[in-house]
Amino acid sequence: MKTKPTVLKLGGSAITYKAHPQRANMRIIDRLAKEIEDAKTSRLIIVHGGGSFGHPLAKKYAINEGFHNPAQRLGFAETHEAMTVLNNLIMKALIRHNIPAVAVSPSSFILTKQGRIQELDTNIITRMQETGFVPVLYGDTVLDLEKGFAILSGDQLTARLAIELGAERIIIGVDVDGLYTADPKEDSSAKRLQRVTARELEKFHYGTKTLKVTDVTGGMHGKIIELIPAIEHGVRAVIVNAKKHDTIRKALCNERVAGTLIEKE
Amino acid sequence: MKTKPTVLKLGGSAITYKAHPQRANMRIIDRLAKEIEDAKTSRLIIVHGGGSFGHPLAKKYAINEGFHNPAQRLGFAETHEAMTVLNNLIMKALIRHNIPAVAVSPSSFILTKQGRIQELDTNIITRMQETGFVPVLYGDTVLDLEKGFAILSGDQLTARLAIELGAERIIIGVDVDGLYTADPKEDSSAKRLQRVTARELEKFHYGTKTLKVTDVTGGMHGKIIELIPAIEHGVRAVIVNAKKHDTIRKALCNERVAGTLIEKE
Repeated sequence: MKTKPTVLKLGGSAITYKAHPQRANMRIIDRLAKEIEDAKTSRLIIVHGGGSFGHPLAKKYAINEGFHNPAQRLGFAETHEAMTVLNNLIMKALIRHNIPAVAVSPSSFILTKQGRIQELDTNIITRMQETGFVPVLYGDTVLDLEKGFAILSGDQLTARLAIELGAERIIIGVDVDGLYTADPKEDSSAKRLQRVTARELEKFHYGTKTLKVTDVTGGMHGKIIELIPAIEHGVRAVIVNAKKHDTIRKALCNERVAGTLIEKE
Repeated sequence: MKTKPTVLKLGGSAITYKAHPQRANMRIIDRLAKEIEDAKTSRLIIVHGGGSFGHPLAKKYAINEGFHNPAQRLGFAETHEAMTVLNNLIMKALIRHNIPAVAVSPSSFILTKQGRIQELDTNIITRMQETGFVPVLYGDTVLDLEKGFAILSGDQLTARLAIELGAERIIIGVDVDGLYTADPKEDSSAKRLQRVTARELEKFHYGTKTLKVTDVTGGMHGKIIELIPAIEHGVRAVIVNAKKHDTIRKALCNERVAGTLIEKE
């Protein structure tokens, strides 16, 4: 039986310096590439976020509000270009670690409608996997059928890819140990949730006021909302801390690791 | 009436140092970006070649011979990555010159069959043009339905895009002044052809022994063969010297310039 795909999302918060526009954390990126090499996961797909490459520019030019002003054109171009620079740093690290990784540029084949993926032709991604490649996608500026253009978050893309490709699991690497009852960076009484269900996740989404929207694609709050369709489709997701040594390798190898497991029921 | 698109091909020989692997000629790239800015061509599409970024790696890993050996996977990944590095240098130059240029990665949406484009969905490229963007594509490593993978030359892509998008003209910028009766770099008696027809081009193709295959995609010889379907489709093509100051601007503005005009009849 063919192994089911695994989608690994590397959050922008883990791989870039949030406070420094367009600065990648090369130490973490190189270590993650090594962990991915060591894990030898078959049928792996990687999606990464924009962090300090994509978000400040997307915000500056209000890309996610759609095309209103001719000056936004150059902003869209700049934002996409910045994302390809971050992507290239990741590709170089993966290839250096002998991973046959091939970048797949979302804006080259995906259109959204009001910010939601309209169609996702996974033919090339599936063929890449069957040929033994590791496709690498990312949050991107994309054309939108109604707004002119929009931001496609890596999180929306991750969940949709997992559904379309029949993935078994999603591993989300961020800069905290999982989901908490409050923002652990601001509230020391915040407790990590070991396991949540899709239904609890929905309540969590509507009930939690302490989670703040920190990036143009919604931060942790946005991530959770985006995961729900994949979870309801039967995909298991685990949120772990990509900044902690060996965590992504362990998660890829199904070893026990601190994090939050999200399942359908 | 809507202007018909113009496809501008920038040859790898003009924008990279052929003798130096992965070294771009930034002086030329920056000047070309300025010329493209000054020309203000509407509905422009740019395609660039691989030069010393793509060709040496593609040759080293025999990418165009198809997938025979697991070691080629990393080679395919490396070759594509190198092409994205060259592309990024060009994108940065175009954006610096206020051109809302957006990279469209051929391997993300094009499949070939025995090295020939199988299907080309121009939906996103057309939408980019309608939104005022300048799509930029390039010769790339692509998945192939029969060979596993292949090289898609910028020349094949240029001609096919011109046909599919209903382009009026193709401007090919190379490192010589046009087509010659022999290789002008090696034969001082070589004469430039001012104008040739598709039929003459076919004879030229079969009759010329002096044109040598200098790159994995066929060099000048390959360029000519690839243009024929577009010319027969009614697209005008002009081959000019992109390394000569102001030549690409003049060609884009339909001003008189040294070169070879290729027309159907």
